[in-house]
Amino acid sequence: MTDERSADLPPGYDALADELAARGATAFVHVGDRFDADVRYLTSLSGFDGECAVVFADGRRVVSVPARARVEAERVVGGSVRAHDADAPAGRRAAEILSEALGRPPGGTVLVPRRIPHDAAVYLERAGYDVASTSALAAARTTKTDAERDRIRRVQRVAIRAMARAEETLAASTPRDGALVWDGGPLSTERLRRRANAVLAAHGAGGAGNTVVSVGPRGDGGPPAAVERTPAAVERPPDAVELRPGETVTVRLAPRGPRGYHGFLARTFVVAGDGGWERRAHVAAEAALNAGLAALEAGAPACDVREEVLAEVAAYGFDVGGPTSVVVGDAGHGVGLARREPPALADETPIEAGAVLAVTPTIGDSGEGTVALADLAVVTDDGFELLGERSRSIVPCSRSS
Amino acid sequence: MTDERSADLPPGYDALADELAARGATAFVHVGDRFDADVRYLTSLSGFDGECAVVFADGRRVVSVPARARVEAERVVGGSVRAHDADAPAGRRAAEILSEALGRPPGGTVLVPRRIPHDAAVYLERAGYDVASTSALAAARTTKTDAERDRIRRVQRVAIRAMARAEETLAASTPRDGALVWDGGPLSTERLRRRANAVLAAHGAGGAGNTVVSVGPRGDGGPPAAVERTPAAVERPPDAVELRPGETVTVRLAPRGPRGYHGFLARTFVVAGDGGWERRAHVAAEAALNAGLAALEAGAPACDVREEVLAEVAAYGFDVGGPTSVVVGDAGHGVGLARREPPALADETPIEAGAVLAVTPTIGDSGEGTVALADLAVVTDDGFELLGERSRSIVPCSRSS
Repeated sequence: MTDERSADLPPGYDALADELAARGATAFVHVGDRFDADVRYLTSLSGFDGECAVVFADGRRVVSVPARARVEAERVVGGSVRAHDADAPAGRRAAEILSEALGRPPGGTVLVPRRIPHDAAVYLERAGYDVASTSALAAARTTKTDAERDRIRRVQRVAIRAMARAEETLAASTPRDGALVWDGGPLSTERLRRRANAVLAAHGAGGAGNTVVSVGPRGDGGPPAAVERTPAAVERPPDAVELRPGETVTVRLAPRGPRGYHGFLARTFVVAGDGGWERRAHVAAEAALNAGLAALEAGAPACDVREEVLAEVAAYGFDVGGPTSVVVGDAGHGVGLARREPPALADETPIEAGAVLAVTPTIGDSGEGTVALADLAVVTDDGFELLGERSRSIVPCSRSS
Repeated sequence: MTDERSADLPPGYDALADELAARGATAFVHVGDRFDADVRYLTSLSGFDGECAVVFADGRRVVSVPARARVEAERVVGGSVRAHDADAPAGRRAAEILSEALGRPPGGTVLVPRRIPHDAAVYLERAGYDVASTSALAAARTTKTDAERDRIRRVQRVAIRAMARAEETLAASTPRDGALVWDGGPLSTERLRRRANAVLAAHGAGGAGNTVVSVGPRGDGGPPAAVERTPAAVERPPDAVELRPGETVTVRLAPRGPRGYHGFLARTFVVAGDGGWERRAHVAAEAALNAGLAALEAGAPACDVREEVLAEVAAYGFDVGGPTSVVVGDAGHGVGLARREPPALADETPIEAGAVLAVTPTIGDSGEGTVALADLAVVTDDGFELLGERSRSIVPCSRSS
């Protein structure tokens, strides 16, 4: 197992080794299912059912998966794979591996992420280890490697294609009797969502439940959408509504690529708008997006980005947090194996080069609508690099990029 | 909050009330993110980032979500919604709700699912409650309501359409120089996966990372697939291979509908097969599928289904667990808010009417290939009802159902 510290291991393992040394701890343990972003980061596994245990001690990593997932795990993880009975608690298995395979005697401190399943922590404690939480893994995940950035860039390209499909559909729709009609029927948030998701799927990404099309101030601006006419259609989502001319239509995408990394892109369109509130809000949102991006720089405090975004919105006369404002001033966040992950833009923690951030200005008014824009960028030593570019026009057009 | 025990609440709350009374416990608490199937069951929420807390005591339910998710939660959950700071631990919030909103004094026992995040359990303990685990929620989830069955039936219909697309694509492919060619290029597992997922997306469901196309004995039967020619394509998945004539191609689908429920469907095809091993395995797998379905009946021991499936496979001369067998004898499982959930087919626990089960016979040989079939059925008082029907032919055809 001497090859376990090879360059193929995520750099988070180096951070964990440093954390173990600094805290005098004996091992790091995590347990989780395939939906857990830390498990995906630590193992690259995404297809298994049940719980996986990751044990890291003395520079060595052992991964234990439910027996039925062993073949996949050996291909993806490599040589340090064990299996356990699918019904057996992975936390108990982790304690066994600690003492038997890795020779860590009971009595030492085991570091775990704070959200490790409770029963796993209890098994470790019953086996004689002290359990303490660490945020070293979350911190390590914020700085993306070149390979991670490449994965995010690629899935963002697909998000841009899906946004183009949504925009083209809106551009081809026509107002009739107070509704938007496309391809012979009312255009609903759900039809638009399905068209965007079909593009994502055709290019190898998944909507991942993250494709959201909303209208008006709070996404409840129109009449309920008619049941889809396709016989095989699944039930209408609870929030599906038909689109109307002149109202804001926001499309948010955070698709997931085949290795689990997400893109993040948001645009707002208005078909047959009157050029009033939504135009002013859109100008302000785009200025805020540019200001937020311009604030990205290695070493800058994270909250600077948020402050630049909010200051720009306020400079255009919008009252962030005022009585008709419906949107909390959330100006951005990290994107990676989770669609929202650290860094948050909340405090003075410096942003590090290699962080991938979505900047997400949103302006909402309970009487008017919501305008949201979001682009994705990687932080560099002297600024930022956009991960893909897409028109930000509020008037939907049929265009290629 | 007197309407909180209305018919709109999942029946799991009745089961939790019974469990609290039986164990003399003061409350039930769960904490989890949007990927947690228990959270989706308890709240119907699926769009939020961060952690949600569910507190149930004295017949009353309170849900606390990160502040930015409050609007969605109020629409979906109803009146009993609180919000907490996104950075604040939801477990601490749960303890506050217990003592303040619900007036449960410290000292009582709080029941939790065993996989509640460790820090949430620690916050409850620090607040003076004893924490004990319960499996009542998992047990309640196995019996589906009419509404749940309808959601599963609808998403299964979409799975059937996606399988039709995959089968049509295989039927239209042609052997050339030892490869399968479709639409002018080599047909890979990844191209097939994307076509199936595009159908799912167009009909409102999501592949949910569960669409798996595998070939040969272990899914590594062909040369690596060429990089997709579409410029926007995301990176090739690590397991993508090009398809070859005569080899088994298994398509597994477990799409997720808009309210979180899954379908489950698997078929195996061979293009230009020689009628040898794979034909015999396919006949055996279909007989095993029918035998497993026939064993479904309210009150029958769960392990009977598995035994019927394995006995049928053995009756056709296949050595389950033998030296060249590559597939563990996993014959089926429950399907619902998770693609795999209880009941397992492991012990003598009786199957209950209303359970939704996938029967999944799989026959693999390390030298030959893998044949897998899976259909989905709901258990009734006197048997079963298939949730959607789809041809099981191993020879791919262009057909409508």
